[in-house]
Amino acid sequence: MTRTVIESATKTVIIGFDEPFCVIGERINPTGRKKLAAELELGDFSTVERDALEQVACGATVLDINSGAVFSNKMAEDPRYADNNFVEPPLMRDLCARVQALVDVPLCIDSSVPAALLAGLETCNGRPLLNSVTGEEERLEAILPLVKKFNVPVVAISNDDTGISEDRDVRFAVAKKIVERAADYGIPAHDIVVDPLVMPIGAMATAGHQVFTLVRRLRDELGVNTTCGASNISFGLPNRHGVNAAFLPMAIGAGMTSAIMNPVRAQEMEAIRAANLLMNHDANGGAWIGLTKVMDAMKDGASFAEASRAAMDAGARTGGRRGGRRARG
Amino acid sequence: MTRTVIESATKTVIIGFDEPFCVIGERINPTGRKKLAAELELGDFSTVERDALEQVACGATVLDINSGAVFSNKMAEDPRYADNNFVEPPLMRDLCARVQALVDVPLCIDSSVPAALLAGLETCNGRPLLNSVTGEEERLEAILPLVKKFNVPVVAISNDDTGISEDRDVRFAVAKKIVERAADYGIPAHDIVVDPLVMPIGAMATAGHQVFTLVRRLRDELGVNTTCGASNISFGLPNRHGVNAAFLPMAIGAGMTSAIMNPVRAQEMEAIRAANLLMNHDANGGAWIGLTKVMDAMKDGASFAEASRAAMDAGARTGGRRGGRRARG
Repeated sequence: MTRTVIESATKTVIIGFDEPFCVIGERINPTGRKKLAAELELGDFSTVERDALEQVACGATVLDINSGAVFSNKMAEDPRYADNNFVEPPLMRDLCARVQALVDVPLCIDSSVPAALLAGLETCNGRPLLNSVTGEEERLEAILPLVKKFNVPVVAISNDDTGISEDRDVRFAVAKKIVERAADYGIPAHDIVVDPLVMPIGAMATAGHQVFTLVRRLRDELGVNTTCGASNISFGLPNRHGVNAAFLPMAIGAGMTSAIMNPVRAQEMEAIRAANLLMNHDANGGAWIGLTKVMDAMKDGASFAEASRAAMDAGARTGGRRGGRRARG
Repeated sequence: MTRTVIESATKTVIIGFDEPFCVIGERINPTGRKKLAAELELGDFSTVERDALEQVACGATVLDINSGAVFSNKMAEDPRYADNNFVEPPLMRDLCARVQALVDVPLCIDSSVPAALLAGLETCNGRPLLNSVTGEEERLEAILPLVKKFNVPVVAISNDDTGISEDRDVRFAVAKKIVERAADYGIPAHDIVVDPLVMPIGAMATAGHQVFTLVRRLRDELGVNTTCGASNISFGLPNRHGVNAAFLPMAIGAGMTSAIMNPVRAQEMEAIRAANLLMNHDANGGAWIGLTKVMDAMKDGASFAEASRAAMDAGARTGGRRGGRRARG
């Protein structure tokens, strides 16, 4: 059974075929969040900290930390800020340090800049997940030595120098190449988490079916765990949460073991918790019953995040253990 | 590609691997609905008629008609009413006649009494679905000749004289036996819709995973369509609709092609419509967009059934065609 081990200072999360689906919170990402980027430019980490707490309360067991910010004002004063190689490494260091001081969950270090990945690896406690390598030659050569040196698992995205293929066989072949290349470095397949790339179904009607087939094949033939940017599937459609909430159980049924996603919405998290139960990955339905109580609390008008925080705090008071209990001191 | 053809007077519904999931409305069933049984005993079909219209408006394309009523008052006066062979055939005749006078969708004739199945077959327009045969010897010998004589498809439930096995290999073997026995009568596999039997996950933690595996095998090895009583999966659990709404997409992803279920709840129907989209069984997302409009209308406080009826009536006024348009005259 494939098990990818990720760790924070004291907590271990396992992505695996026999484990509950691993929810990697996507919110800490200034790409496309202008307000967040502007805050970070001013050294304000309050939104990051709120997002960290909320996501963990809602059920994320790993937090993605993306340093892809554009600091427009600083750039106007100092041209070095136009270079992500200049901006991202110190930002990644700050983000990881702030978040792990607040919540004791493993982190997923996410950047297109190798130096930012290195900064994250140097800052993170435990055994973070690196995000990401692709099948591009330059990327393989830059990232795999880091993966080996720091002995961490890595997300492998199935595109290469020819781009993203619409042919699922080509995407499978790219994933296979990455796994083989990693093996050359002595990196085992269980430390590769393949992202088969989820296309918007509004742009490509076969996108859903394609992912399900690819995930099953990646699991059966390569024995690897898988992840995806789950909300891509519904891009451009009305009622996106409804599409996501069917996509996730179907992907889980096909064998997908994690996703990088927004856990702050009840509909998607309800679907995942139910899918865990249906896969027999929720012993005695404990997590399902816990979620039901949170959803009951929402009937009084609380948001999912608020109700989840209240449930987590109540659990902490009564000695219950949850991954996201706020670190003492 | 397996296609099971079901017909009303003028409409054809196809259950098939390349078709949208077939929703068979389960509401017209006096078993366990004491109030409905009491109404039927008095010759009152108003609830039946309301249920027929609502289910079709909400998206059922086939209606199950179950005649399993207990007429307690009549039984006290006339001992013949203690015998379902006496009660069900005329009741099935009345139910089928009433429903098909109101909605032009194919019916699924559902009884444990062979004479009631025969009464339904004699009453129904078109090509109804017969529900059901099992692997029990007596049942095979009573039902398969009816299936052959009337040239209709049949639901095959995978239990036999030894009962319901918890072993999925035994349940597969029972289904295979029914398909082979049907072939002896000249009934093709595409006219057998196997119900692999869904157990409550609260009683059997492997129930979900078991069904998904069994459905995939029934499809790959026997080439048959499948159905189930979908809500069984969540029996005894809190927030049953949430469990059902993840179960259905997962079952669809595994290859299930129909279910006997309550279509009057938005959550399950949203999950099915999204799953159809994700399976590429909703050309241009037309059905998904239609559902989104219905759900938007629910924000004003309308129930799913009310909003669905309103949308259907608006479609009829503007010349849109829907399976459940009320028959004229």
